[in-house]
Amino acid sequence: MKGCQDDRMSDPAAVGPATPVAPATPVASAAPVASAAPVDPASPVVAVLGGTGEQGRGLARRLAMSGLRVVLGSRDPVRAVAAAAGLPWEVSGTDNAGAATVGDLVVVAVPWTGHRELLLSLADELSGKIVIDCVNPLGFDKQGAYPLPVPEGSAAEQAQVLLPASRVVAAFHHVSAVLLLDETVDTVDTDVLVLGDDRAATDLVQALADRIPGMRGVYGGRLRNVPQVEALTANLISINRRYRAHAGLRVTDV
Amino acid sequence: MKGCQDDRMSDPAAVGPATPVAPATPVASAAPVASAAPVDPASPVVAVLGGTGEQGRGLARRLAMSGLRVVLGSRDPVRAVAAAAGLPWEVSGTDNAGAATVGDLVVVAVPWTGHRELLLSLADELSGKIVIDCVNPLGFDKQGAYPLPVPEGSAAEQAQVLLPASRVVAAFHHVSAVLLLDETVDTVDTDVLVLGDDRAATDLVQALADRIPGMRGVYGGRLRNVPQVEALTANLISINRRYRAHAGLRVTDV
Repeated sequence: MKGCQDDRMSDPAAVGPATPVAPATPVASAAPVASAAPVDPASPVVAVLGGTGEQGRGLARRLAMSGLRVVLGSRDPVRAVAAAAGLPWEVSGTDNAGAATVGDLVVVAVPWTGHRELLLSLADELSGKIVIDCVNPLGFDKQGAYPLPVPEGSAAEQAQVLLPASRVVAAFHHVSAVLLLDETVDTVDTDVLVLGDDRAATDLVQALADRIPGMRGVYGGRLRNVPQVEALTANLISINRRYRAHAGLRVTDV
Repeated sequence: MKGCQDDRMSDPAAVGPATPVAPATPVASAAPVASAAPVDPASPVVAVLGGTGEQGRGLARRLAMSGLRVVLGSRDPVRAVAAAAGLPWEVSGTDNAGAATVGDLVVVAVPWTGHRELLLSLADELSGKIVIDCVNPLGFDKQGAYPLPVPEGSAAEQAQVLLPASRVVAAFHHVSAVLLLDETVDTVDTDVLVLGDDRAATDLVQALADRIPGMRGVYGGRLRNVPQVEALTANLISINRRYRAHAGLRVTDV
């Protein structure tokens, strides 16, 4: 396995809790809804592939609010630029390959149907990087959501097969996009299960989750135990439907 | 599907939160560690198959403490009687078939390896009853726990296939047996995901969980979404190992 492109990526402190010194400088006209730490030039760039979808845009918004530089990737760079302009922090937009190239950490938030094809096409750009897969392979019918079978076991395991020179971490599956995007929600009170086979990589992604107020990254196991974490999103959808909620999970005694 | 053996089983109030009027009368010599409601003769009898295992004994203990009559079942009735004598509430012990016969609600807490054979042998005894499956089909190696493949999808779905005249509910997968059995632990602070295809049955099992101080029953979806809930126990084992914890889950915004 190749090493990190950037030594900062081996140090969880590089993405650890932001120091709230001064509000970020907006790069678009809309006013920020919360103050954020200044962007540290030494901090990693986070790319979000599928960054115009709700989950991708929501994560991008919260990570940018925390003071990180974020690049939205999309199949359509025009849409990525437009989506970035709607996020008044250090966010830019480009196509998925461009985002994968400039990102130190790369979040994969594309629809499951395009997952395999996209990652196959970006194996070179993603080589040596930490790839954070938050894709949930789910089907939907009139009874709600249910997990789809994945030959490799899970989306994250598929990513690791397709990207042997990347370190794949699975995380952010259960975070409500509605809450991430809601400007009236200051804290997103949920734990984020972070799974992977590389300790430094999971530590770093836990630290990334810790940057978002209310969120906490909790180590959740190795890649072979990702399938049930992705699939559990179907249960949260059932819970949301029954209780009219935006359910998340907290791990107790940790 | 046959109806309930007992109308009380259609009424969640029948197993709802215990009214703490007076301490239970111990039926064995050891002193109870907490006061419990008196046993209501109209309340259902809970049978626990595999009641001499840690999970079964722990659940039996907490349900008996809440004022319910509990019958421990085991392959070896002598061991079941001995285990019941160690629980100073309204707990008795017998063989699995005897427990299945007298139980209104029947908890299945046997090891996964004996699950299919036991349920096949008890289809008649369990006919018309609510069967609460809390079995986790897991394997273990030096890297920890991992989910085993189940032809029917999950232990609970296997139970429903083997027991077509019973109503199978999946619950109590993630509750730490250590905490259930710890006499110094007064409240078991965790949510219990309750899954099933029959609303009255899942309501009743949620009410059963609600009887245990600190616990809360939360509807978690239909039987087809049980596999990931059983498998998630492997992740909790990973978490316990990493954080030296007895991890449980809370559902937020519900």
